[in-house]
Amino acid sequence: MFFEAHLDLLQAAAEANRTRSAWSGYSPITPPDAPQAETFLALHDGATLQLSVQTQTFIAADEVSPYTGKSLNVTYSAPSADEVLGGAAAAAAALRDAGVEQRVGVCLEALDRIHLRGQEFAAVTSHTTGQSLNMACSGSGTNALDRGLEAVAMAWAAMSRVPGHVTWQQTFGKSDVTLRKRFRPRPLGAALVIACASFPAWNAYPAILANLATGNPVMVKPHPRSVLATALAVGIIRDVLTEACLPADAVQLVVDTVDEPIAARLATDPATRIVDFTGSQAFGTWLERNAGNALVFTETAGVNTVILDSVRDLSATMRTLAGGLSLFSGQMCTTPQNIYIPDAGVLTDDGRVSRDDVVVALRSAIDDLAAAPRRAAAVCGALQSESTLHALGAFAERAEADGTLVRRPAAYDHPEYPSARTVTPLLVRVDPRRGDQLPDGEKFGPVAFIIDCADRDSAVEHATASVRRHGAISSYLYCTDDEAVDAIADAYADAGASLSANLVSSMPMQYAAAYSDYHVTGLNPAGNATLTDESFIAGRFRMVQDRRQVEE
Amino acid sequence: MFFEAHLDLLQAAAEANRTRSAWSGYSPITPPDAPQAETFLALHDGATLQLSVQTQTFIAADEVSPYTGKSLNVTYSAPSADEVLGGAAAAAAALRDAGVEQRVGVCLEALDRIHLRGQEFAAVTSHTTGQSLNMACSGSGTNALDRGLEAVAMAWAAMSRVPGHVTWQQTFGKSDVTLRKRFRPRPLGAALVIACASFPAWNAYPAILANLATGNPVMVKPHPRSVLATALAVGIIRDVLTEACLPADAVQLVVDTVDEPIAARLATDPATRIVDFTGSQAFGTWLERNAGNALVFTETAGVNTVILDSVRDLSATMRTLAGGLSLFSGQMCTTPQNIYIPDAGVLTDDGRVSRDDVVVALRSAIDDLAAAPRRAAAVCGALQSESTLHALGAFAERAEADGTLVRRPAAYDHPEYPSARTVTPLLVRVDPRRGDQLPDGEKFGPVAFIIDCADRDSAVEHATASVRRHGAISSYLYCTDDEAVDAIADAYADAGASLSANLVSSMPMQYAAAYSDYHVTGLNPAGNATLTDESFIAGRFRMVQDRRQVEE
Repeated sequence: MFFEAHLDLLQAAAEANRTRSAWSGYSPITPPDAPQAETFLALHDGATLQLSVQTQTFIAADEVSPYTGKSLNVTYSAPSADEVLGGAAAAAAALRDAGVEQRVGVCLEALDRIHLRGQEFAAVTSHTTGQSLNMACSGSGTNALDRGLEAVAMAWAAMSRVPGHVTWQQTFGKSDVTLRKRFRPRPLGAALVIACASFPAWNAYPAILANLATGNPVMVKPHPRSVLATALAVGIIRDVLTEACLPADAVQLVVDTVDEPIAARLATDPATRIVDFTGSQAFGTWLERNAGNALVFTETAGVNTVILDSVRDLSATMRTLAGGLSLFSGQMCTTPQNIYIPDAGVLTDDGRVSRDDVVVALRSAIDDLAAAPRRAAAVCGALQSESTLHALGAFAERAEADGTLVRRPAAYDHPEYPSARTVTPLLVRVDPRRGDQLPDGEKFGPVAFIIDCADRDSAVEHATASVRRHGAISSYLYCTDDEAVDAIADAYADAGASLSANLVSSMPMQYAAAYSDYHVTGLNPAGNATLTDESFIAGRFRMVQDRRQVEE
Repeated sequence: MFFEAHLDLLQAAAEANRTRSAWSGYSPITPPDAPQAETFLALHDGATLQLSVQTQTFIAADEVSPYTGKSLNVTYSAPSADEVLGGAAAAAAALRDAGVEQRVGVCLEALDRIHLRGQEFAAVTSHTTGQSLNMACSGSGTNALDRGLEAVAMAWAAMSRVPGHVTWQQTFGKSDVTLRKRFRPRPLGAALVIACASFPAWNAYPAILANLATGNPVMVKPHPRSVLATALAVGIIRDVLTEACLPADAVQLVVDTVDEPIAARLATDPATRIVDFTGSQAFGTWLERNAGNALVFTETAGVNTVILDSVRDLSATMRTLAGGLSLFSGQMCTTPQNIYIPDAGVLTDDGRVSRDDVVVALRSAIDDLAAAPRRAAAVCGALQSESTLHALGAFAERAEADGTLVRRPAAYDHPEYPSARTVTPLLVRVDPRRGDQLPDGEKFGPVAFIIDCADRDSAVEHATASVRRHGAISSYLYCTDDEAVDAIADAYADAGASLSANLVSSMPMQYAAAYSDYHVTGLNPAGNATLTDESFIAGRFRMVQDRRQVEE
């Protein structure tokens, strides 16, 4: 029933995916205002959520709003590894036997219900991750729903490419042999999805739903300090499963604590056959090497580079770049980190601008943003974790001592929440030629390094070497020579990275569109899972076949 | 040029694959007679083949004909791991930049040339593996070419599903943003293909060509005692690469010895990104766990079961089963091993036949085959390895001592080669209910266990438990009740196995048709690689993208 109800949407999504054109399956969610958001939050204050098999263990999660500093005060069932794996095993056969259309229908209905409760999800997302309410409605709202729908459409398309049955006839010697054959997609087995603290929905929806559509029971483990939004999504999926007469435990929530993490134990259990992970490069690589019985999909982190060579309009470019550095306080895996400026400065329509002036222009653009509280709040949101703020402060002190500090990471005044954990970007300027060091990998949070370099070619060389060593999720170039853009795109491609050139507009530079933009190439150290290519889907199901001879 | 020349063939293969219907891209190869085969062999007597980067090391391979007992006397360049990886790295960029159509064209042309030299390949295959000349023309000839073409068509289809470029437009705020996007498939990296001694082409062609089509340089490591047929194929591909102005080292042959194997070293090198392996379950599992930087595809071994419940015509069924047990002396991964017969015997159109009589009928059918030398030679061929013969003899002695021996593994008289290493199936009969033991996994070679069991249900239970524990590549059922076949197909599917029912014809029971039959489900311990599903292809290439903003 759910399948038929959403079939038009599904077909449109599959078509958008085939053409990689601009499309969304979900109408925009109007951001709630701050009091409305708090009302949504209050709905869950003191709640105990049981979103797994029965267990005696519960955890009052350490979820604290980055805006108000108040605890969310929500308790979750916290099954042990054995309990949650037992729940998944118990749900497996019914989920498998439900068939493709029923499972896909459940996925589509769940997405629809999450969308209908979009404002509530945005409120909860904002008060756990620190995302602004705007971003929580788009990046963690419609965009995440679209990425989820994309994965469902990809899974459906992949399973649909194999015919259900065929009559096969061939001559052997002098006789014709006729076989009736059936082909059935079958799930691989229990799947673990590990979400991150700051952006839990965007990666988790595709993983959860790709698993569910292909028939694999899912264990969803959010970050222990950012649980509730994921829990609500799991709750909705469980409701829909129940209404579809399927076991709710086909999707379970697993909650752990920072001190006693459960992910490695679950990922290495022989019963776990699929792991999707979003988080640190260190744990991602560990999973790729150690979850030997599982198909492992990782999206971790890299050092995203920007090469500033030539632009039409420097101010517009600096506004775009300031927005990119500030967006969600630099806590996105697509945030630029290393900005290369050649010795000769940047060529513009108004002539060449010296590097020092470009640096000033960038700092000013950030300062302008920081000085406009309403806009700053909408763009920057807040820092998810206190530790990011501490690390940033320490880093700024060292930069000041080094003489490399360009801009201090100051707070902005949040219009509604004076005690919000706000911060605007730290800028550091280095010249590797005189021995300045760059960090050995990603610096999480709003920190950018302006890198003095000889020229465009040396920038490309340094940046692509960084891609090979540290990985990259998004890479940016400003260059008005289209042939040079081709050559630089080739250089990034050879290093295993995609490239965005000359983004200067109302679109945030790190925007990655579902159905069109591939996210993570799988060809550099920033992870092996691409949203969404066929390799993200193909291994989650396999084909079983039966064939029987038909008597002549 | 090669692409256009073979485009019709490629499209027909892709269409056969979509519909999973009966089709072949290659006309049958007429088997040479024995003297012709020896003439082909003589062409290579004393040859030294250089099919890799330059190296100082050469190996005179230990290849001895199972028919004549004579050495093939061929020497191969034997690059070290560093040398062959260096060769692959040096060839990588040109292969990658050649683009999809040029690479696919090379694959198609190479298949065509192998087909044109089909009799020579059959002669060499026969005198290294022990396959009969008939089988070498079909199983290692046209069927292997078809599996190779299937993989090329799948790779081409997968890469073609992504558009090369798109103009993308979306409104942000009040302005339209237009992006020109390009999408380009890119290879993962150096690929290792490890072939087995007895059936080198059927699995290796798909792996080699799927890698080549997607742009990954390939290192082909045949079994040290079964090199020449693979070497000739590699030589042809290298010739075609050279004619296409691509580096020959995009495909290299790696030769090692039994005493100093190189596969583990190559598979675990961080530069190796893809491993395809055909061989033992032990090494396959080791690779899956230890080749941590590589995508690992394995096809190993399982215990293939046959359940005899009810048949139309017992004699015809026994002839088919005797043929299945004897085909290539049981050295195929699809050979039946465990045959279940219920206490009540087997129901036939002529009434119920007792188990003892069924056992006698099976033994007689094998004896009949063994007593007809020309037919036995065409069906059984010879044993690739002396060690298989020794193991079989030892096993027969133990069975005789146990009182479980039904049929001794006697040689048949080969019409052309009196000293050929021939053998016909060993039959053992056990009853697990009285404590008889079954081997803990596959017994390689022509040995079958007739298993006394209570009834059909207990046979299904025992057989599917065996699938879960030991894996299975092919599973067989004889049952005239179509509803029962459905239920048993479900039970096998739940254990992760495909099922063939009621095969009684001129088609060998273990025949798996390219474009139609999936080979290895990936859902049980017999391996994780399916010929050919999308998961066999998808991860071998990834997408890189560039997008640039178009000014309004």
